[in-house]
Amino acid sequence: MNTMVQTDLLDILRRTVGAAQVLTEGDLSAWELDWRRRWRGKALAVVRPGSTAEVAAVVRACAAHGVAIVPQGGNTGLVGGGVPDASGTQVLLSLQRLNRVRAIDEANLALTAEAGCVLQTLQQAARERSLLLPLSLAAEGSCTIGGNLATNAGGTQVLRWGNTRELCLGLEVVTAAGEVWDGLTGLRKDNTGYDLRNLFIGSEGTLGIITAATMKLAPLPAATTTALAACETLDACVALLKLARARLGAGLTGFEVMGRFALDLVARHFPALPRSLPDAPWTVLLEQSDTEGEAPARERFEALLGSALEEGLVGDAVVATSLAQSQALWQLRESIPLAQAEEGANIKHDISLPVSAIAEFVTRTDAVLRARFPGVRLVNFGHLGDGNLHYNVQAAEGADPALFLAEQEHAVNTLVFDALQPFGGSFSAEHGIGALKRDELVLRKSPVALAMMRSIKAALDPQGLFNPGRVL
Amino acid sequence: MNTMVQTDLLDILRRTVGAAQVLTEGDLSAWELDWRRRWRGKALAVVRPGSTAEVAAVVRACAAHGVAIVPQGGNTGLVGGGVPDASGTQVLLSLQRLNRVRAIDEANLALTAEAGCVLQTLQQAARERSLLLPLSLAAEGSCTIGGNLATNAGGTQVLRWGNTRELCLGLEVVTAAGEVWDGLTGLRKDNTGYDLRNLFIGSEGTLGIITAATMKLAPLPAATTTALAACETLDACVALLKLARARLGAGLTGFEVMGRFALDLVARHFPALPRSLPDAPWTVLLEQSDTEGEAPARERFEALLGSALEEGLVGDAVVATSLAQSQALWQLRESIPLAQAEEGANIKHDISLPVSAIAEFVTRTDAVLRARFPGVRLVNFGHLGDGNLHYNVQAAEGADPALFLAEQEHAVNTLVFDALQPFGGSFSAEHGIGALKRDELVLRKSPVALAMMRSIKAALDPQGLFNPGRVL
Repeated sequence: MNTMVQTDLLDILRRTVGAAQVLTEGDLSAWELDWRRRWRGKALAVVRPGSTAEVAAVVRACAAHGVAIVPQGGNTGLVGGGVPDASGTQVLLSLQRLNRVRAIDEANLALTAEAGCVLQTLQQAARERSLLLPLSLAAEGSCTIGGNLATNAGGTQVLRWGNTRELCLGLEVVTAAGEVWDGLTGLRKDNTGYDLRNLFIGSEGTLGIITAATMKLAPLPAATTTALAACETLDACVALLKLARARLGAGLTGFEVMGRFALDLVARHFPALPRSLPDAPWTVLLEQSDTEGEAPARERFEALLGSALEEGLVGDAVVATSLAQSQALWQLRESIPLAQAEEGANIKHDISLPVSAIAEFVTRTDAVLRARFPGVRLVNFGHLGDGNLHYNVQAAEGADPALFLAEQEHAVNTLVFDALQPFGGSFSAEHGIGALKRDELVLRKSPVALAMMRSIKAALDPQGLFNPGRVL
Repeated sequence: MNTMVQTDLLDILRRTVGAAQVLTEGDLSAWELDWRRRWRGKALAVVRPGSTAEVAAVVRACAAHGVAIVPQGGNTGLVGGGVPDASGTQVLLSLQRLNRVRAIDEANLALTAEAGCVLQTLQQAARERSLLLPLSLAAEGSCTIGGNLATNAGGTQVLRWGNTRELCLGLEVVTAAGEVWDGLTGLRKDNTGYDLRNLFIGSEGTLGIITAATMKLAPLPAATTTALAACETLDACVALLKLARARLGAGLTGFEVMGRFALDLVARHFPALPRSLPDAPWTVLLEQSDTEGEAPARERFEALLGSALEEGLVGDAVVATSLAQSQALWQLRESIPLAQAEEGANIKHDISLPVSAIAEFVTRTDAVLRARFPGVRLVNFGHLGDGNLHYNVQAAEGADPALFLAEQEHAVNTLVFDALQPFGGSFSAEHGIGALKRDELVLRKSPVALAMMRSIKAALDPQGLFNPGRVL
């Protein structure tokens, strides 16, 4: 691309969104560097449109000039899907200024918001009406709903409410032709044609630019309580999950598992945190949301855990008696990644399996990893209720973590991803493909599926200007 | 297409699936005539493959000969989407012999079954393991899961469990190239590429042929109970819905509304059925599913309805005290379409709206219809919890119903569908497009969405041989 074309495009973009919203100079790290600091790109310009019409105009201008567009929300992605490449030829299109809540329809339990709204802002907007937006994840203070949708984000409430996909009723999208598709419906049922909405959700900015969405809300629960249970085996954890589902139904809103070594690391690096239960190979954190109140919820928990003790599924259990205790139990769980970081660099996985296959997968894969990498330490924890494990691998005690990461990451990944295959597991449960896992996708996805994905990409983005080099 | 090409294709098909499974003679009404008896086609042959590999081979043979394929499940669709046209040149591909349950994974709460399995068979297979397949609709004794998926069927449990789409975890599909996509996953989270699954669901056989699916299961509830409540206005019904959601949470599994004239028709044609509540403009049927048992469910219902009486939302209410009473209440609701049929031909609608817009839509549209068609009678009932009304229009008392249908159907449809537009409603909530509503789709769907649908159709079925003339 020659300089004249670029200059011409920048002029048009400045006229379209205002010169102050076309950034080409100074420190643009906030948009060009991903927050894991693994990818640093260089944009032709960071463009910050303020409305859907401006997004469409930017797309039309870029298309006319053959310039690629990388859409970005809160820049909290984990797979390098939202920063430009190093060529200096791509437009980084930030959606952050599209940040209006357009409507909250209480009777219809629906909220319509623009793509750049920060997730936490939307959670609060719902909560002010005594409603719940049931999407919650670590980055909620800075991630945007557009990014959540583009990546089909998961989080801690998937067991009850599903992924972001299941929470979305409708979308507004700017297409590759720079047209606006108004699919902002609050309908629960609408069988008039192909499911375009779900095609855009999870497509990581490669098929269209999500500019707004209508999301499902739910009544706020009257009470949310937690409990911890100690299990000897992962099989027992899975049996406890089954019992909890039968007893609590949709009241079971969280079921997290933590391996002994994961909690050992928390104890080592955050000694002030109470461990709450005696040492056990596996500790389960259960969360219950109730429409009646604290007391009946706690009674149900006690009855459930009493049965689990009788059946020998759990060795010990504790039910939180206050909100502060509940929060302390969650803090244990949430401190694991931080404790891991304190312990040093490590190889992270975001895998999923059928719940029925998890125990066997872990037993087998632990053994193979330990045989191949003597002394290796497994930090295993995650959303067991969803079959989603963060099956992380830490260097042997005393070994150099950075060296282990640099030398063994590929071999460890290959071993773990290969081990998933006979169980029908996924090598990316929550985080997506982005730039990081593109090669794995080509290796591991069925050729029939890949061919369909490529033909859809060509159909909806014939010039290939939306987030090139990501996903496909 | 000349006779030689047809003869050659039939020979290949007979070799592929066996001569006995290629039907060209005798009475083929079971496949060529839809069950509403509105569309009668003539197939080149009815082909009944017995395996996914045979389906793929049939598709390859048809593609090589340029012959169109109309896939069919239980032939219970309502929009003419599953019968061949009258040309005698299309292959009717029946999936009914693909009827194996391939697996039930209890711990993972998932069932994998072939497309031709009858829905009720799958419900029973789940129930035998104390599990629930939460999809239920009037045609469940003869519709197939493949057809349910192809049309994204709704039914009576959508309020709690969503449409068929929300219940599906994975698909196996034969593509237009005659390849098999094995997307049969039991995973709850898998962000590896575009959402092909949801693209096929609801595409009515126009993008690929679903040959098997993995469906979500849930624990069987310990008890299911019902109640009736009488409301003066639709606004009061919507307020009751809000209260019931807050009090019962996910325990609220049904919320149906019945207008006075709908119940009058039931009383007229089925006088033996008990009416249970004094006459009121609107009667609501609530269903609750509970993980604990009958008694606590009934207590919760009584507390809820007590509050609703106090708040003046309902004038009277009754909670079923036995399974037989619950069934009798459902029978009232289910007798409405039968009573309508007894009353004579009528104009049926399957519309949806945001719940918040329903009362205003009905008030306005009732008035316009009555002004335009004096004496017209509105049979209004449906899944209020999902915003889905069967807003049916019956000829004036004493008028000839058949004549009214023949002369006024188009005018009534246009009036009703036009009235939906300012509220963001849908003219096909559950039943799909098929052949019946293709013209409406072109009229009423956004041109941007239509263009995307057409480009996806061209990408996945470039020869246009899958169910031509349906949807698009």
